[in-house]
Amino acid sequence: MAKEKVCLAYSGGLDTSCILLWLIEKGYDVVCFMADVGQEEDFAAAKAKALKIGAVACYIEDIRREFIEELCFPAIQCNAIYENVYLLGTSLARPAIARAQIEVAQKEKCQYVSHGCTGKGNDQVRFELAFYALQPSIKVIAPWRLPEFYEKFAGRNDLLDYAAKSGVPVSSTKGKPWSMDENLAHCSYEAGILEDPDVTAPEDMWKLTVDPLKAPDKPEDFTLVFEKGLPVKLVTAEGKTITDAVELFLESNAIARRHGVGRIDIVENRFIGLKSRGCYETPGLTCLRSAHIDLEGLVLDREVRALRDQFVTFNYAKILYNGLYFSPEREFIEESIVASQKNVNGQVRCRVYKGLFSVLGRSSETEKLYDASESSMDEIGAFAPADTTGFISVQAIRLKKYGDAKLSKGERL
Amino acid sequence: MAKEKVCLAYSGGLDTSCILLWLIEKGYDVVCFMADVGQEEDFAAAKAKALKIGAVACYIEDIRREFIEELCFPAIQCNAIYENVYLLGTSLARPAIARAQIEVAQKEKCQYVSHGCTGKGNDQVRFELAFYALQPSIKVIAPWRLPEFYEKFAGRNDLLDYAAKSGVPVSSTKGKPWSMDENLAHCSYEAGILEDPDVTAPEDMWKLTVDPLKAPDKPEDFTLVFEKGLPVKLVTAEGKTITDAVELFLESNAIARRHGVGRIDIVENRFIGLKSRGCYETPGLTCLRSAHIDLEGLVLDREVRALRDQFVTFNYAKILYNGLYFSPEREFIEESIVASQKNVNGQVRCRVYKGLFSVLGRSSETEKLYDASESSMDEIGAFAPADTTGFISVQAIRLKKYGDAKLSKGERL
Amino acid sequence: MAKEKVCLAYSGGLDTSCILLWLIEKGYDVVCFMADVGQEEDFAAAKAKALKIGAVACYIEDIRREFIEELCFPAIQCNAIYENVYLLGTSLARPAIARAQIEVAQKEKCQYVSHGCTGKGNDQVRFELAFYALQPSIKVIAPWRLPEFYEKFAGRNDLLDYAAKSGVPVSSTKGKPWSMDENLAHCSYEAGILEDPDVTAPEDMWKLTVDPLKAPDKPEDFTLVFEKGLPVKLVTAEGKTITDAVELFLESNAIARRHGVGRIDIVENRFIGLKSRGCYETPGLTCLRSAHIDLEGLVLDREVRALRDQFVTFNYAKILYNGLYFSPEREFIEESIVASQKNVNGQVRCRVYKGLFSVLGRSSETEKLYDASESSMDEIGAFAPADTTGFISVQAIRLKKYGDAKLSKGERL
Amino acid sequence: MAKEKVCLAYSGGLDTSCILLWLIEKGYDVVCFMADVGQEEDFAAAKAKALKIGAVACYIEDIRREFIEELCFPAIQCNAIYENVYLLGTSLARPAIARAQIEVAQKEKCQYVSHGCTGKGNDQVRFELAFYALQPSIKVIAPWRLPEFYEKFAGRNDLLDYAAKSGVPVSSTKGKPWSMDENLAHCSYEAGILEDPDVTAPEDMWKLTVDPLKAPDKPEDFTLVFEKGLPVKLVTAEGKTITDAVELFLESNAIARRHGVGRIDIVENRFIGLKSRGCYETPGLTCLRSAHIDLEGLVLDREVRALRDQFVTFNYAKILYNGLYFSPEREFIEESIVASQKNVNGQVRCRVYKGLFSVLGRSSETEKLYDASESSMDEIGAFAPADTTGFISVQAIRLKKYGDAKLSKGERL
Repeated sequence: MAKEKVCLAYSGGLDTSCILLWLIEKGYDVVCFMADVGQEEDFAAAKAKALKIGAVACYIEDIRREFIEELCFPAIQCNAIYENVYLLGTSLARPAIARAQIEVAQKEKCQYVSHGCTGKGNDQVRFELAFYALQPSIKVIAPWRLPEFYEKFAGRNDLLDYAAKSGVPVSSTKGKPWSMDENLAHCSYEAGILEDPDVTAPEDMWKLTVDPLKAPDKPEDFTLVFEKGLPVKLVTAEGKTITDAVELFLESNAIARRHGVGRIDIVENRFIGLKSRGCYETPGLTCLRSAHIDLEGLVLDREVRALRDQFVTFNYAKILYNGLYFSPEREFIEESIVASQKNVNGQVRCRVYKGLFSVLGRSSETEKLYDASESSMDEIGAFAPADTTGFISVQAIRLKKYGDAKLSKGERL
Repeated sequence: MAKEKVCLAYSGGLDTSCILLWLIEKGYDVVCFMADVGQEEDFAAAKAKALKIGAVACYIEDIRREFIEELCFPAIQCNAIYENVYLLGTSLARPAIARAQIEVAQKEKCQYVSHGCTGKGNDQVRFELAFYALQPSIKVIAPWRLPEFYEKFAGRNDLLDYAAKSGVPVSSTKGKPWSMDENLAHCSYEAGILEDPDVTAPEDMWKLTVDPLKAPDKPEDFTLVFEKGLPVKLVTAEGKTITDAVELFLESNAIARRHGVGRIDIVENRFIGLKSRGCYETPGLTCLRSAHIDLEGLVLDREVRALRDQFVTFNYAKILYNGLYFSPEREFIEESIVASQKNVNGQVRCRVYKGLFSVLGRSSETEKLYDASESSMDEIGAFAPADTTGFISVQAIRLKKYGDAKLSKGERL
Repeated sequence: MAKEKVCLAYSGGLDTSCILLWLIEKGYDVVCFMADVGQEEDFAAAKAKALKIGAVACYIEDIRREFIEELCFPAIQCNAIYENVYLLGTSLARPAIARAQIEVAQKEKCQYVSHGCTGKGNDQVRFELAFYALQPSIKVIAPWRLPEFYEKFAGRNDLLDYAAKSGVPVSSTKGKPWSMDENLAHCSYEAGILEDPDVTAPEDMWKLTVDPLKAPDKPEDFTLVFEKGLPVKLVTAEGKTITDAVELFLESNAIARRHGVGRIDIVENRFIGLKSRGCYETPGLTCLRSAHIDLEGLVLDREVRALRDQFVTFNYAKILYNGLYFSPEREFIEESIVASQKNVNGQVRCRVYKGLFSVLGRSSETEKLYDASESSMDEIGAFAPADTTGFISVQAIRLKKYGDAKLSKGERL
Repeated sequence: MAKEKVCLAYSGGLDTSCILLWLIEKGYDVVCFMADVGQEEDFAAAKAKALKIGAVACYIEDIRREFIEELCFPAIQCNAIYENVYLLGTSLARPAIARAQIEVAQKEKCQYVSHGCTGKGNDQVRFELAFYALQPSIKVIAPWRLPEFYEKFAGRNDLLDYAAKSGVPVSSTKGKPWSMDENLAHCSYEAGILEDPDVTAPEDMWKLTVDPLKAPDKPEDFTLVFEKGLPVKLVTAEGKTITDAVELFLESNAIARRHGVGRIDIVENRFIGLKSRGCYETPGLTCLRSAHIDLEGLVLDREVRALRDQFVTFNYAKILYNGLYFSPEREFIEESIVASQKNVNGQVRCRVYKGLFSVLGRSSETEKLYDASESSMDEIGAFAPADTTGFISVQAIRLKKYGDAKLSKGERL
């Protein structure tokens, strides 16, 4: 009988190398899968290692463009943010990775997919819900939730021993006292010494961005142009113009990284109900999102903005965070994002300096909701000031009744 | 017959001095009213000027404490923010000022209240809706909405001429090319040269905060302690401890001001439907609000936070911005704020540097929702990893049906 | 100089006949406009009367189809309801009427539009906001808000006298002691004796529906078929099949009317802040909406439904009620309605009896979210019961912490 | 060693009798618990049976009052409804039952609680989440989720055989082809022949209410009085006055039952993601809720109502349905319910007839938001009609810009 086949999300690190080995020992053919979402990684070395350990194949898929265009861009369009602070860098990458993995699994006719996520985190949920939606018949092997596995590998030393015994090459360097996840949008840091939420993140932890204290003393300006809420052009201080989505995103990152923009340190609520401390640096996305918010002030209707803020932004972020990207509700919400952005056209002049992003000005050639002379306090224009008296009087009908009721009940307002 | 009496919100400036004179000429007895909400002002000189012009009385009311405790503090508790960026500094002061003015009007048995707000702005609405709720029988004279007045005074020169002719002392200094509103919470800048939203605010405009580029090269740390979501203690880097609400707020301001924290530049949507460009600096409140958000991550339940964010925060800000503070809906919402904050107890270690506020760590002695060992990726603890398999499987029931339906309809996910 | 021209919304009744005359006396050329939205009306007689009084033209526009298809159908799709009870019959007709009136005004090159709405109601707002959005340059004459007009015509007798003196033919029959508005969707009753909210509506008031007490003793069944949330077929008890939108709506009305379905009696909150008592009968729309809700239970995803209910339904109703149909927010929301209805395909077997609408059963040939065997309590199926244990355990993580906190604080749950 | 002890939710039926026996065979001491929530039940016989089978004790707790006062009444106050139709009868009883069971478990020092809920339904979730919040250390035995149990008892015959072999007395009558759950608020019917959502519920299924077709030909009127949104008095047509909460609820039931009020037949979305068909009859609660909604029209502020509808009602229903009653979010939301109901004081005159509930009139002695003369179309009153012109003009500012933008882009409105 042919062996059953597993497509394993492989990173080249100790954990997934041991899982690869363990799956082979359990009798599976294992196809390794690596997604290039812009993380710093020696893909060739990792692939060689996978094959050396015994993978029947190892795929490296560059999904940076779809990660940017299909995930990060809608997030910018709706100003996605989780719990007031987190820009969802990890959550955004997961759907793109899961889809690419399922495509490899289907190509290789795997009955199973597997991953190295722990049993307490969000990522296991995000990956598996995506797997099940993308291919409802797929079966998932999550070793870190199998007692057979996690009881055998109770600590890092057990993994090291297992690797050593099996001839799996492991880097001798001691791991960092936290775990990281990197992609084009961000780098995250959690666990280890960060589990005490009152311990300040060590300065040498941050990987992508320069320490704001060591950032240049001179601010750097640039201009972002949006069409339908999407960033379509970046013009640097030197006048370089970039229009390709991936290159634009990379340039935003480069600018923000050298000025220390986008670091946060938070305690968040995981989907499974635990609280967790995480540090994140999200350089370019922080700038792109802030500039987009600014432009909306100029060109987006007040009521559309209010409905979008209360409904779309909130729920899109929650859906992404909880791993429900491939769901009817995300599909539904995303049509609302597009519907809200028709007129979000214009440009924002931006500045970064010592960790701070700020806006120098904004304009739009096509949208005319802002009208300087009409807003002007110095001109009457087409506006009859007496109208406002009526506006206020009508608003006051209800409030006068409220005031009267309070008075008659002797309650102070 | 006794003259009718007006209580005029007086500032000592050219506009309200002319209005004072005009009201007297119209045959009213005028009682001037000034609220001390922490703005930089020579109250004694203004009072002298009012009396010299002919006011029958001039009241100066220090309402700083109630402004902080009744308005700014609930705003901190619910992280109030308007259109993603504006901390509502002006909106927060208006209800306290209007109430104090009505109290003076009642004491002086005035049939009317008056103010110098223009006919296109938010403040006229905020003041008048408050007046009508506080005393439904009050009558309002809004000169800038009366053709009789605004046609007479079509420009600044008309006011200067009128003042000169009437012997009203006016400062000879030319006004700044923008208008300002200052209180303990913030200083706002709008109109004039700012009406072009693409013109960068001039550096010498900002009054409260130092330019981030000129801020100290050394960050400054401090600690904020919250009880039930309210700031109750500030400990400075030097170990000075402040617990009085007003002093704590002032100290937050002092720290943030010297590090350039809290400047924004936006285009916002006014209640009357016009878009308007405003620059705001909100030093202390920016820090207090950000620290509060951070602490909620540690101690507030996820679902309470989500409901509060989507419902309370959004609506409280909208209500305040639109001048509906004295309303049934604000009373209703404010009870929800209190209900949400029972467990928001703990402290946040904060840093400011070159315009940037950041969090160094947070802790709570009383609240235990965060549990480092339970969240730890390295410990199994009371948690059965297999449970998560069931959690995911049940979540997947609905998504598998979605995936199946998509497959059967030949649509790509 | 050519006379200025007004397009007047004309009904043939006393009020608008007097307004017509008054406008002519004021020196305008007046074009009368009547919209056929399905109300019972002698249009030919009204037109003759308008021309006799002196209108330069009188247009009668049949807009029943667009009223049904563009307004009533989206309302069915999103289950629109205002304040839990009102199906928005009047609100739905206004945008279609206003658009047709503006089209006539444009064709006739009128500088003005006019209407006979009172100064306290919703309809003046609905019409005028529509006018201004449809043609921002249009000017509105609202006689009932002009002191010159309403002081002259302080009571019905003044209008009768004016009409008599001017030879305007008026029906001698005494008006009903309430006012009515009828269209295909509903008939409304308000004002007059209904202003006491504790007075029961008299039985002879209701015009469209039979008194439930006098309705047939035998229920009547019919079947409604929906595609993408729109009613596309009605099959009567006798097997007659109707697919045309207008005919289907009329048949729904006929069935519901003879069984007394769709009467309500409420106190509602008008846009301008007054409370108002209204009685409404909405026969067919009540059935169509209820059947649509039922079908959504079978075929609509839970989360899409929840988001739609909380966001789309609520806001669509508010927007319509407040006369903001021609607005960016309605355009935005309506795209969400469409996005939510892709899978709302199937049929509902309905029953009406003595004022009661009920559902006998529902089915869908294309949608498979409901799965009898999977839901069955008697079959295990593909479902692992143990999974639910994990689902509950993970949900309980957060609640156990809550319980522990309550215990430690000595608070009872 | 002492035996471990289980507190079993016992009903006296076949399932829980077999579970009782099975638990005893597994070596547990079993304490049986029955909650009297108003269901029709021979409690004494059930208790005798439990003891005969071998329970070490059997508690029967009358929790009808707290079920009404603590659960049903807040549901009335916020007009709780799930998915537009379901009044949550089962969901409301579960928290009261779970709390009483935990109290018995604590009194009897049980380490475990157990129940007979199936593995696919909502009730297992509701009970267990309540158990875990009320006593985080409790352990749950859910036999229908244990393979050891459900594989042994794959069908009803297996249970009958097991009972017979063990001498457990079982009623020889064949069960009904659906399952039921009854309490003071409602009776539910699901499963069995109802699993086909297109099969009409058989007439003899409905237990509480008379068939509307067989209901009296004469309507019955009664009056409900509310204070702070709570029903405090019911006056029958004969003038009988009832003020006790339980008696008032029972009388509402009696009236509604004899007129066939409160039947629904729906497909709903269970918490675990399956769709499920259920029929419910909720006689008294339907009337109480509808009357409460009506009164709110008269006395509740528009904006408070809107916020409450969108936020409180929606979320309270979702929380209850999903079994999250003992949670921070329910505690939070419930404070909002109370805050919204301060002025919901007055009375509603109600009618029931052939399944239909309707309102005849309503009034309030204390609340004055409704003002007949002010709302009157026939009186000008304190209201200046010209104010509305200003109100409309200001609202139109934004819409004119929208219209202009549409025109300039050549898009039809």
